[in-house]
Amino acid sequence: MNTTGIGLQEVRAAYQRIQGWIHRTPVFTNEGLNKVSGRQLFFKAENLQKTGAFKARGACNAVFLEKEENPKSPGVVTHSSGNHGQAVAYAAKCAGLPCSVVVPKGTPKVKCDAIVNYGAELVFCEPSPAARKEVCAQIAEATGKAIIHPFDNYNVMAGQGTIALELLEEVPDLDAILVPISGGGMTSGIAVATHGLNPNCRVYAVEPFGKELQRSLENKKRMWDNPPRFLETIADAIRTQQVGDLTFPILCDYAESKVFSVTDDQMIEGMRFIFERMKLVVEAASGAAVYAAMNSLEDVTPPPRKVGVILCGGNVDLDHLPWIDRKTSY
Amino acid sequence: MNTTGIGLQEVRAAYQRIQGWIHRTPVFTNEGLNKVSGRQLFFKAENLQKTGAFKARGACNAVFLEKEENPKSPGVVTHSSGNHGQAVAYAAKCAGLPCSVVVPKGTPKVKCDAIVNYGAELVFCEPSPAARKEVCAQIAEATGKAIIHPFDNYNVMAGQGTIALELLEEVPDLDAILVPISGGGMTSGIAVATHGLNPNCRVYAVEPFGKELQRSLENKKRMWDNPPRFLETIADAIRTQQVGDLTFPILCDYAESKVFSVTDDQMIEGMRFIFERMKLVVEAASGAAVYAAMNSLEDVTPPPRKVGVILCGGNVDLDHLPWIDRKTSY
Repeated sequence: MNTTGIGLQEVRAAYQRIQGWIHRTPVFTNEGLNKVSGRQLFFKAENLQKTGAFKARGACNAVFLEKEENPKSPGVVTHSSGNHGQAVAYAAKCAGLPCSVVVPKGTPKVKCDAIVNYGAELVFCEPSPAARKEVCAQIAEATGKAIIHPFDNYNVMAGQGTIALELLEEVPDLDAILVPISGGGMTSGIAVATHGLNPNCRVYAVEPFGKELQRSLENKKRMWDNPPRFLETIADAIRTQQVGDLTFPILCDYAESKVFSVTDDQMIEGMRFIFERMKLVVEAASGAAVYAAMNSLEDVTPPPRKVGVILCGGNVDLDHLPWIDRKTSY
Repeated sequence: MNTTGIGLQEVRAAYQRIQGWIHRTPVFTNEGLNKVSGRQLFFKAENLQKTGAFKARGACNAVFLEKEENPKSPGVVTHSSGNHGQAVAYAAKCAGLPCSVVVPKGTPKVKCDAIVNYGAELVFCEPSPAARKEVCAQIAEATGKAIIHPFDNYNVMAGQGTIALELLEEVPDLDAILVPISGGGMTSGIAVATHGLNPNCRVYAVEPFGKELQRSLENKKRMWDNPPRFLETIADAIRTQQVGDLTFPILCDYAESKVFSVTDDQMIEGMRFIFERMKLVVEAASGAAVYAAMNSLEDVTPPPRKVGVILCGGNVDLDHLPWIDRKTSY
């Protein structure tokens, strides 16, 4: 463990703990995309992960540890816009623990169904960061269930960091990794692991436009207005504006302060590109990293040649693909 | 070579010839789908193949052989509803040969663009089997280009058979393989290779409703009405009703005479299932095999436990996904 909470050692321990329960996801390359981008791109297909998103890694690590450390645990509870909830439900099922998931009203049905299918209890709340936390805390209080925070939890971060273990084992000499960011659990885990394995490899966060993470990272100080809010973005997996209190210092230490901001239209372009060229179903959040890889690395020095791109998830409402919906609504 | 034109030896030779130019595609499994189907399913992801479909295998084998056997070849020409055309264009580009592709009017734009992007010349014809052949023959006559038939060509069949080499290397003890069928090039190639590698593994064709292949296979005689026609099906990759003159005897010898017929709605269900559960973009033709794997194996004896399912391609018009278009048009 380093001064900021987790180190490569915790990520390695997480990998030992979870590897029987998660997929080692493939790393895809595509000559066409290399040509268009002028770089060698390596796509880490976490859309093919258990539960359809990288979140299974962090959830398994945190939930399995809860069971190890508290054999009589009454279970776990979490709040999540969907992917983390599904992941905690999956992890709890693997561990044989009861599970409650608080989700904001309006969460896509496909994600709610998946949570219920893993045997978890679903609790709806108002769609604000404050309401989520409150309902989650009430359940924890009433039942003794352990709260598994979506990102501000070192065990979750360490689990997400295992993405970098696999990716850098396959492509050790990456110059950069692009990570879609919401609360910062995945980016901080990947940044810590990458720093430990290949300090020359830069980790960049890719955010929905309006998050304004770069200003905070440059100042090493939280510059956001409070109370915390959700961003207006089509990428429902990365709507949290402020990164976590625990993830922020790690991001300041190990991620690049340069952050790529991507608009909804740009995310959709990146998303559709992966459907069309790579035949993979990915979420809009994944599209953000793809767009940045294709279009935003021109001005970065030194220019990264070999770039990892995290396709973070594939839980899409297939009845409402954004490039079709948007065309219809014009 | 066996009495019916190709054997395992030709398939192995094809693999040697093409393996530097095609992907060894992954074989995916999915616990959820195993549970629903009550079997162990192994999905061969030819949607991730070069050009987005298995056709790259057969085209490479045939085009590379043309170049080997005729070093001064003026090039190749073919007719195709899209995937084979794209594949021949790709193969010709790899081989450095000129290429013309005859496509029926109405072929999805995404497929036409891909052909042109590989540097081939595009020639439109009326959408009938006869018109295709005629235009193709005219070009061959005028230019000396070699015709690369989409399926009635032993070199093409041998190339498609390499799918089975890879699949059975990974899962040697499959009980059955389900193959979407159009002209029969892929099914015959897979059937020949499978017979050579594991004669206990049965190869079943899955057809669009109305093709009536089973009647011909059971009688070992072509029972279709002439002239040849296209089927009315949403799966534009498998619209040919009659299998080829060269593929038919091989199918009679090595494929099961039992054929699974799948309606458009069923294909769409299978297709959507793969998008949603496996996060893969697949064509309707792939959905046919998926639907059969999930729903049609109950009455088969002995019941196959381990089943290979060929996801033959992923070249989809993403602006017109059938489950969305159909809902809109109701």
